[in-house]
Order: sequence, then C-alpha cells, then structure tokens
Amino acid sequence: MALRGALSRLSHSSRHFNHTYQQSRAHSVAVLGAPFSKGQKKRGVEHGPKVIRDAGLMERLSNFDFSVHDFGDLNFQHLEEDEPYMDVKFPRTVGAANKKLSAAVRNAVSAGHTLLMLGGDHSLAVGSVSGHAQHSPDLCLIWVDAHADINTPMTSPSGNLHGQPVAFMLKELQDKMPDIPGFSWTKPFLSSRDLVYIGLRDVDPGEYQFLKSFGIQYFTMRDIDRLGIQRVMEVTFDHLLARKQRPIHLSFDIDAFDPSLAPATGTPVNGGLTYREGIYIAEEIHNTGLLSVMDMVEVNPDLGASPEAVEATATLAVDVIASSLGQTREGAHTSMDEIPPGKNDTELRL
Amino acid sequence: MALRGALSRLSHSSRHFNHTYQQSRAHSVAVLGAPFSKGQKKRGVEHGPKVIRDAGLMERLSNFDFSVHDFGDLNFQHLEEDEPYMDVKFPRTVGAANKKLSAAVRNAVSAGHTLLMLGGDHSLAVGSVSGHAQHSPDLCLIWVDAHADINTPMTSPSGNLHGQPVAFMLKELQDKMPDIPGFSWTKPFLSSRDLVYIGLRDVDPGEYQFLKSFGIQYFTMRDIDRLGIQRVMEVTFDHLLARKQRPIHLSFDIDAFDPSLAPATGTPVNGGLTYREGIYIAEEIHNTGLLSVMDMVEVNPDLGASPEAVEATATLAVDVIASSLGQTREGAHTSMDEIPPGKNDTELRL
Amino acid sequence: MALRGALSRLSHSSRHFNHTYQQSRAHSVAVLGAPFSKGQKKRGVEHGPKVIRDAGLMERLSNFDFSVHDFGDLNFQHLEEDEPYMDVKFPRTVGAANKKLSAAVRNAVSAGHTLLMLGGDHSLAVGSVSGHAQHSPDLCLIWVDAHADINTPMTSPSGNLHGQPVAFMLKELQDKMPDIPGFSWTKPFLSSRDLVYIGLRDVDPGEYQFLKSFGIQYFTMRDIDRLGIQRVMEVTFDHLLARKQRPIHLSFDIDAFDPSLAPATGTPVNGGLTYREGIYIAEEIHNTGLLSVMDMVEVNPDLGASPEAVEATATLAVDVIASSLGQTREGAHTSMDEIPPGKNDTELRL
Repeated sequence: MALRGALSRLSHSSRHFNHTYQQSRAHSVAVLGAPFSKGQKKRGVEHGPKVIRDAGLMERLSNFDFSVHDFGDLNFQHLEEDEPYMDVKFPRTVGAANKKLSAAVRNAVSAGHTLLMLGGDHSLAVGSVSGHAQHSPDLCLIWVDAHADINTPMTSPSGNLHGQPVAFMLKELQDKMPDIPGFSWTKPFLSSRDLVYIGLRDVDPGEYQFLKSFGIQYFTMRDIDRLGIQRVMEVTFDHLLARKQRPIHLSFDIDAFDPSLAPATGTPVNGGLTYREGIYIAEEIHNTGLLSVMDMVEVNPDLGASPEAVEATATLAVDVIASSLGQTREGAHTSMDEIPPGKNDTELRL
Repeated sequence: MALRGALSRLSHSSRHFNHTYQQSRAHSVAVLGAPFSKGQKKRGVEHGPKVIRDAGLMERLSNFDFSVHDFGDLNFQHLEEDEPYMDVKFPRTVGAANKKLSAAVRNAVSAGHTLLMLGGDHSLAVGSVSGHAQHSPDLCLIWVDAHADINTPMTSPSGNLHGQPVAFMLKELQDKMPDIPGFSWTKPFLSSRDLVYIGLRDVDPGEYQFLKSFGIQYFTMRDIDRLGIQRVMEVTFDHLLARKQRPIHLSFDIDAFDPSLAPATGTPVNGGLTYREGIYIAEEIHNTGLLSVMDMVEVNPDLGASPEAVEATATLAVDVIASSLGQTREGAHTSMDEIPPGKNDTELRL
Repeated sequence: MALRGALSRLSHSSRHFNHTYQQSRAHSVAVLGAPFSKGQKKRGVEHGPKVIRDAGLMERLSNFDFSVHDFGDLNFQHLEEDEPYMDVKFPRTVGAANKKLSAAVRNAVSAGHTLLMLGGDHSLAVGSVSGHAQHSPDLCLIWVDAHADINTPMTSPSGNLHGQPVAFMLKELQDKMPDIPGFSWTKPFLSSRDLVYIGLRDVDPGEYQFLKSFGIQYFTMRDIDRLGIQRVMEVTFDHLLARKQRPIHLSFDIDAFDPSLAPATGTPVNGGLTYREGIYIAEEIHNTGLLSVMDMVEVNPDLGASPEAVEATATLAVDVIASSLGQTREGAHTSMDEIPPGKNDTELRL
C-alpha cells in the first residue's frame, strides 16, 4: 500500500500548481475572432477564426463547466492611404486593427472573462497583449512559436509586422523602435524578464542579439530536445511565477508545431513541437490556474495542400485551446453529478 | 577499459529482468484467431486475424527458436434471440463468444503454450483474461490502450461492450455490475492492484472515478510525456512484479498507437504512442521472461483510408507481437550455430 | 538576476565542447560527389549527389562564413571483368572506386579542407574513411545508420558490399577478412575503440557477435529510447574524445532516420531517428569543433514513391549537413557586421 501510494504520487502528483497558484478557474470564457492578415503578405490567414470555429470549437467548449460567450469577429478596415514605412507594409492598417483589438481585449478582461482571441496573423499580439496589460499591468507572457517575432523595422529581413509584435511591447527596445505610423496609441509596457519563448527554431540575426542582450528566457527546439518538455515548463513557471502569482498571457502561433501536424500556416519550419508536447504545454498552463488571455494565430486555410491538411491544422488549434482551458487526457474533464447505481441500487462509495 | 566497461553497462545493462525474473522463455507459442466484432458497432474488426496473418505474422514467428502452433480461428455464432440489455447490444452473443474463447485460452495455456490471441474487438479480453486466470490465478494484467475499457453498462456512454471488459474482471466492481445476459459463466477474478494501464488518453467520467477510487496504477500519455517510457515500464514492473514473479497477460489495443501509425482502427485518438514507445513496451515485457498470454486487438481493415493504411496498421501489430516474443533491435534475435571462418579458416573466438 | 543566470546556464550552457575541444572551425569546406551504386543492387543511389545538390546544398552552404569549394563529382568506372567473390558482386569495381575516392579525400583533407562526401552507397566509406585516415591516423569514426555495416563476405546475408565497409577498416577483423579482389590497396587502420554507432536497429547475427566480442560502443534505437539523444551524445564524446581531441569522421547514412522522414533510400527500417534527433546529433558534432570529414550516403531518388518523397529525403540530407557545419536553431548562424540603428540613429549597444 505504501508502495502504491508512492507510485501514485509519482505518476499523478504534478498538480502542485493547482494548490500554489490556482486562485480562480475560469467561470466565463469569451471568444473573439480577429480576421486580419495585413501583418504579412499571404492571403488566407484572415479566415483563421472561421476554420477554427468550423473545426468544432464552440461544441468542444460547451463540454466544460464554465460559461462561454462568443463575441463574434471584429470588423477591421483596410486603410486606403497607407504608404509603407521603410519595408513595413500597411503600417496604419495594422496599427488601427490592433488599436481596435486592444480595446476589445481590455473590455473583455475587465468584465471578468478569460479571453480567447482567434487570429489572424501574429501582428495581432500587439493589440491583444497591450489590451490585456491595460487591465493587468503585472501580466507575464508565454510565447509559443517557431519564431521570436522580435524584429524591429530595422532588423526585419521581410518587413512583415507579424515578425515584429514583441518589439512593440518591450520596454528594453523603446529607444530602438522608430515611430511607425499607426502605432502612436501604444507604448512599450512589458519587461523582458516577464517573457518566455518556447519552440524557437528560426531566429533572425538581429533577433538573436536582442534575445541575448536582454537576457530573455527562451527555449529553442534544441533546448526541448535536451531538457524535455516537462523541465522546460518547470523552468518557465519558475522564471515567471516563482516570485508572485500573476495573470498569464499565452500567445500560441500554430507554427510552433511541426509542419507535419500544422501544414496550413504561413511560415512553417521543420523540427517543431510534437502533438503531445503542444498539449503538455497547454495542460501545464491550465494547471497554474492563471491563464487570462490566449491568442491562437496563424492558421491559414489557403495554405493547406488539401482540405484534410486544413482540417488537421484547425483541429489541432482546437485541441490546444481545449487543453489550455481544462481538458485533460486523464478524463476528469467533467464532474459527474450522479453516479449511476449498480444492480442492487446501492450507491457507489467514491 | 574501465571507462568503456562503465559505458557499456550504461548502454546495455537494462536486462536485469532477464536474471531476476526470467525463468522460462517461450518454447512454444500458440496462435489463436478470434474473428469477432459484436462488442462494438463498426464492421470489419472481425477480419483482424486475417490481415495480421497476411502481414507476415507466421513467417516472422518462424525466425525464433521456439515452435509455433497455429490453432486457426475460432468459429463464433451470432445468436438470433439477443435483445439489448440497457444500452448493451448483443449481450448473449458477446457472452457466448467469450465463453468459447475462455475455454480455448485455458486449454492452450494449460498445455504449456505461450498464447497469442488475435482479435477482433477488445470485448474479447473478457474471455482471454478469464481463461488465462483459470490456469494462472495469480496473473497480472498490462492493458495498453487509449481507453480504460472499464465502464459498466450504467456508466458507458455508448453501450459498447468493447469499452467494458475490465469491469467484468475486477473484484472491486462486483457489486456495481448487473447480471448481463450471456455472462453468467464468469465471475470477477482480478484485483485492481494486479492491473496497470499504459497509454490512456480518452477516459470517460465514470471510468475516471473507478480508476481513482480503486487506486489503479495507470499511465496516461501525459504521464508518459512526463516520466518517459523507460520509467513508466520500471514503475509498471515494480508495481506488478516486485513482490513475486508471476505470469503476465498483455492486452494490447492497437489504438494505443498514434492514429498516424495505426489508422485502421475503430476509435482512434490523437496523441498516442510512437512506434518506438510501443516497441519498447513490448521489448521490456519480453525481457521479464514472464509473458504468458498476449491479446492483439482492434485492427479493423475496413476503416483504413487506403490499402497502405491497413497494411501499415497490421504490420505494426506484427512488429509489436514479434518484439513481445523476443525480436530485438540489437539484432541478437537468432543464435548462430556456426560462425563462418575467416580466410585462414581460423575459428572466431567469440 | 542570480536565478535568471542559473536558468540561462541551464538552457544554453551545452557548449562546453566549444571551449574544451574546439580548435579550428572550418574555414574551408570542400564538397565532393561520389555517384556510385555498385556496393548494392538497387539502381538510383548514384544520383544521390545530384538530388542533394538540387535540394539547395550549395546555396545553404553559402550562408556560412567559411569558403566552399565544389570539386564536382568523381568519375567512376564499371569494370568489364569483375566476377563475383563468394556472394560479393563487382568486387573490383567497388575496390577501384574506393581507391579513387580514398586518394581524393586524402588530398582534400591534406589541403586543409573540411570535406563533405556525397554518396552514393555506403560501400564508399571504405575509401572516404581510409583516405581521411591517411592524413589523420588518429581520427575517430561516428557511424550514424540503421545498420552496422560490419559484415564480412562470410557473414553477410546479402553479399552487398555496402553492408561491409566497417569490416575493411577494423584491425580486430584483419584475420577474419579474406583477400577480396580490388581491395589490395587498403589495410585495416581503425581500432574498434575508435568507433561509435548511433541509430542501429537491424543488425545481422554475425554483426552482433562482432559488436559484442570487440566491445564496440554502439547505441541502438532502444538505447536512444532509454537514454535520450542528449545522453547518447555525451557518452559518445566521452568515449571518443575524453582522452584527447582528434579529428571526427562522421559517416551518416540517411536510413538512420525514420522511413517517414527519409523514404527515398534502399534499406529503410521502421522506428528510426526523428528529425530533431538527427539535427541534434549534427549540432553536437559541430559543437566539438572537430568535424573533419562527413559522408552523406544512401539517398536514392529512384526509390521515393513520389517527387515529394525524394525532395523530402534530399532536403533532410541538406539539413543534417548544414547543422553539422554550424547552422543552429538558435539563429546565431550569421554574424551581423552591423546592427541597423534605431530611430535616433543611436548605436545598438549589444
């Protein structure tokens, strides 16, 4: 018995964050679509919210014991007068969309919702994280992505704003960022020590220097190979939560997964997360009880080689969302109100 | 030299079970087909024995130094008068098939064979494990599966008996199981402490409560993610074999594997075992020297999207079977009677 | 800060080999094609150099800060008079090709190049490693492969010379190897303690006895499952480099990878390396700073089921090559000469 107790602890005792950090599980989840693609050049990612919904998102969320509020999709405008800034295309259009998103996120979080934002390209994180920070200035940010998305217009090889959102957030980059038209509404609000990257494997030279010079905690796929995903999550939480509990913003780019799992995305890179690693990340973040806002971005249905490839990518996004919000592989996702009686109508003594 | 010795131990010293537990390697393996599908609703799983044989099973087994006896396939009958019991379909047909299988397994094991049972759906485990237990009451059960298969008719969401076989076995569930028509021939015979699950990732609410309330040792895919498959097997053997050596019944549902590897099965669930994890489980069980009966179930050729998908699933089943019976990745699967001499006809001094 | 420092060490401190072993990073890489297929029976592997080049090899190598010299392809002849020796086909043709390759490799290494040899079948390793050893007698050999390739003509089940190259090299096998026509130009030059295998999973009985009797350090896929690829590489380097720094010959058979990743090859075996494990091996070897010659062999474009399968295999070969020569997943693959200034034209203080 003592042995079995010990073994049981070994296999099922990982939930210490439940006790330490978990204050309030979500009682209300808000879903907000952000059909926007001007942070990069490939068409189709604006249909991300639709295909993620079509993959059964709302039905999956209905299995939980929180309420779900679907706020539909935001309506973004493409500005006519929007000359490039350096190599950056559509800066005012991207800026205006993020300003709108930022207000919506702030309002939803202020109203007490846990917010799920469906992109759209990853430039939307400027609005999502900044809106979240307006309500929760002490938030921390977990960025799951093949890319660091921390270029400035000066270091970016492509000029795409979906590769630059983190540069808008970081206080340490304040004097390196130019005044890009369309973004005067936002100021850097995040310290580099409040950010952890997971899944990096395609980092530009300027990005690498930022990561190093600011001492940012990041885990490349090589680090995951070396440490294992369990240890990576332990270190992530030690880094972000050891001193105090605080809201988590999870910004999840579907291209963190291996292209064999998530083919329908704009910038796939070989050697990504396995399905199980991605689910493990989501489960661990749920288990902290601190998830406040989640972005799910870069699902692009125009880029799948087949309908099956698109559906697989969108279903994967739904799986990650469901695990982040409490679905478990152990099965305790629903509390049974009543255990059906046995043949003698005796109650199960559980 | 000392260093190399240590390194050699590090890399190839896992076989301590060989010395501790291995008493008698199989000298005779019996193969028994069970073409049965009435424990669930999808056609085709009754052809499992055929496609596993067609994937080269007998030829693979002929490479070993044990003898192989093929007992062919059992002949099961579909009973005309077989009204549902609650939501359970064909209870008398399933009960009669398992009664027949139980006797056949008991006889084969009593005759000294290591038995390989080819399903068919997983409801057949009622007959297979109970027949095994009649000869070896002290057996232990390793259940490799995406599902716990421990529902009762009252907790089962589907009514399918292939999701309920463990409930027929467990003494702890005796007063929770109704008198299902067709099963009066069997009584619970297994203690929950003699069972270990590996691979769970889709557990129904009632099942979860049984697992927890009976203190059953189980490893979900999340546990494998956290502990690694090596540690999972160590804990499994510590749990089942530390106090005494005893026969192992391995009940292997092909859906334990990831659907990308085993697509031709009835209830696939994403995030399953890798090929290497499945083979590792089989190797470790072989290395105990205690495998007595093995079920290989739920290969359904009607559910593959292509002939290649079916063949991949069946070949995977053959690989797991071969590894469970002694095939190794190290290559020592055959003992050479004679090493060919070199150019000087000198003997190799090995 | 102290905490972050510790975490940073945890996640990015694996480069101790950089300091201990790294003497001279490659300043010049030579590429040499070896379009040869007579070491086995399947057509097409002679086109390996072409498809690896077509997958963008030279462009990828142009991103590095070493110079690249493409020596084109060697021109091999098929000898008319070439009767089999025992079961060995075309012994004189294979011997002559390897003699030619051996001289070319010796010359390239003597000229100061790090050499990349593109096969062709794995029998070419006789020439590649022996030529390398003529310049660097103290080299060590890392053999990444599903197979041990250490058969002699007497133990080989197939007679294929691509399954025998290591037997030509090992001093310990000197009196077991017959005088095969075409190979009188080479003598055994390698001690079995200077060789490590990684990735084995299909080892012939005679090979297994050689591995065991000579105490060769090898890691099967089972060993990788048990130890993890990080520990495997640590033990590999401890075994080969702990006593002294010396040149590494990496002989990489693409069939070390799982067939799902490298389908276009002659003897695929299930349960191989993942993409990330293969890249990790390459990165770690690069990080020693000691890579001197690398073989990339057994890419066979005639054996892919589709053009995509061939391209995937060839691209994988290029990825392994690039990582072996310094590409990193962290992104520091290029040194920026100049960091673009920020909005105030201030210099980035990195």
